[in-house]
Amino acid sequence: MSVDLLVKKIKEKGNPSVAGLDPKIDYVPEYIRKKAYEQYGKNLKGASEAIWEYNKGLIDALYDVVPAVKPQSAYYEMYGLCGEEVLHRTIAYAKEKGLYVILDVKRNDIGSTAEAYSKAYLGKVEVEGELFDACPVDCVTVNPFPGIDGVKPFIDDCNKYDIAIFTLAKMSNPSSGELQDLMTDDGKRVYEKIAVKINEWNSDTIGESGYGAVGAVVGATYPEQAVVLRELMPKSYFLVPGYGAQGGGAKGVVPCFNKDGLGAIVNSSRGIMCAYKKGDFKEEQFAEAARAEAIRMKEDITSVL
Amino acid sequence: MSVDLLVKKIKEKGNPSVAGLDPKIDYVPEYIRKKAYEQYGKNLKGASEAIWEYNKGLIDALYDVVPAVKPQSAYYEMYGLCGEEVLHRTIAYAKEKGLYVILDVKRNDIGSTAEAYSKAYLGKVEVEGELFDACPVDCVTVNPFPGIDGVKPFIDDCNKYDIAIFTLAKMSNPSSGELQDLMTDDGKRVYEKIAVKINEWNSDTIGESGYGAVGAVVGATYPEQAVVLRELMPKSYFLVPGYGAQGGGAKGVVPCFNKDGLGAIVNSSRGIMCAYKKGDFKEEQFAEAARAEAIRMKEDITSVL
Repeated sequence: MSVDLLVKKIKEKGNPSVAGLDPKIDYVPEYIRKKAYEQYGKNLKGASEAIWEYNKGLIDALYDVVPAVKPQSAYYEMYGLCGEEVLHRTIAYAKEKGLYVILDVKRNDIGSTAEAYSKAYLGKVEVEGELFDACPVDCVTVNPFPGIDGVKPFIDDCNKYDIAIFTLAKMSNPSSGELQDLMTDDGKRVYEKIAVKINEWNSDTIGESGYGAVGAVVGATYPEQAVVLRELMPKSYFLVPGYGAQGGGAKGVVPCFNKDGLGAIVNSSRGIMCAYKKGDFKEEQFAEAARAEAIRMKEDITSVL
Repeated sequence: MSVDLLVKKIKEKGNPSVAGLDPKIDYVPEYIRKKAYEQYGKNLKGASEAIWEYNKGLIDALYDVVPAVKPQSAYYEMYGLCGEEVLHRTIAYAKEKGLYVILDVKRNDIGSTAEAYSKAYLGKVEVEGELFDACPVDCVTVNPFPGIDGVKPFIDDCNKYDIAIFTLAKMSNPSSGELQDLMTDDGKRVYEKIAVKINEWNSDTIGESGYGAVGAVVGATYPEQAVVLRELMPKSYFLVPGYGAQGGGAKGVVPCFNKDGLGAIVNSSRGIMCAYKKGDFKEEQFAEAARAEAIRMKEDITSVL
């Protein structure tokens, strides 16, 4: 249980950031796409295999710089079964390279169904008394909309294995406030009410690192809210989207960290994946450019902590 | 755009109910499991193929009784790629039999990512200028937590194709109130605020049936809330879980319908799938039992409308 494994990897790399693997097809260098289409056809399979080559290159360039990767499930689901297969391959390869894998799925449902989701990604799937791994990752994102019924199955698996979850609290997108910022009748915003719940759910899962298994997603784009959320959830790790591409900068992420310099991991997807499109890089240098950006980001963030 | 196709199928069958395909492995009759394990092994593949046989039997028995089926993605994802493949096979088979397919995925994310999810299930996926179907269904469930950013990409695809979505408003599970029932400072509950949004999002998508593309998930277990929600979203179709197995009865679903007898489709999963476990049925009669229960449910619901 707890988020100890992630904290260990963050400390080893001295880098509280995670590389998002959200492979939009137009992120993939043309020479990789061309080769994949020639081999597999201009179809879902060809696109999926292009993404695989791209991901593999990125992981090879990043695995000794970042502690974790965060594949976004949507960009694999959109290529159907071929895409799903490449997601599984990407996860396995990242784990082989020692990376902590946060699968961004934002799953949510009633208790019995949440249990099935948790078994798929965090736990084990039983078939006639034997246990199998369906799509094993170290951590998933969870949407708290159904309340504890939908979160408890994940926490139960966190308690069984060395894994963790990040529960949405305050998202990074412009319209996140429509629901999350609603003011309740006791003067607290909905995101604060969620934070109180997360803190409560997290309290029985604290590990050696001082942090528990139930983390929170807190957008870098809302630093003022992050201050409040940090106070409400002192022992929850924060997964922080919105650095770079979505507009948040290094200063914006500071409130997500605790005074010990821990407590948060900052995501960058497009910034790292498309680094080759900026500056003097050739397409073929996409991995080199991604590595340089990941190092720059590490220095940018650690410089303000 | 709009939910016209579903309304048409509901009228044709005279049946405002949908059979949930949530195939927990212990729902599957033992003789089917045994055969699949012998052929494919006691593993994820064997379990997936057992589910396929079961689903196929259910669809064959139900396709002329119910207008729609609702596969719950979690129960397929939990068997990894084999499970996903059986989900795709089940969807294709159900569509071949003329059933409207509501895929229960409760997806949600920031705009760019929601767009990828929508393309995966509702829209088309572009590869070098050509359009492909990744996992085409007629309708998906969507979680409104990110606000309009996360819903608009789905609505855009609804406007392009003859499809619809059901957005979570008030879920059927016991803890759904933790977030959804929070009282806001203007005296409205969060689920009411969501309903106002859904009604607004739905307003530009009204079809010939008088109903729009943006429906709502409203649990049968909360009939009092359903009364309020029905008023707030007069032109949204309701997907109603919680009938039967989750405790809601035929009377509980009445408030979800409009006076025209339309406006809602009631889901039953376990009640139909496991009907053979009640009464004098043999395992081998699971499909017959499911059909009898689906007909009983149709009569139960239509009798109170």
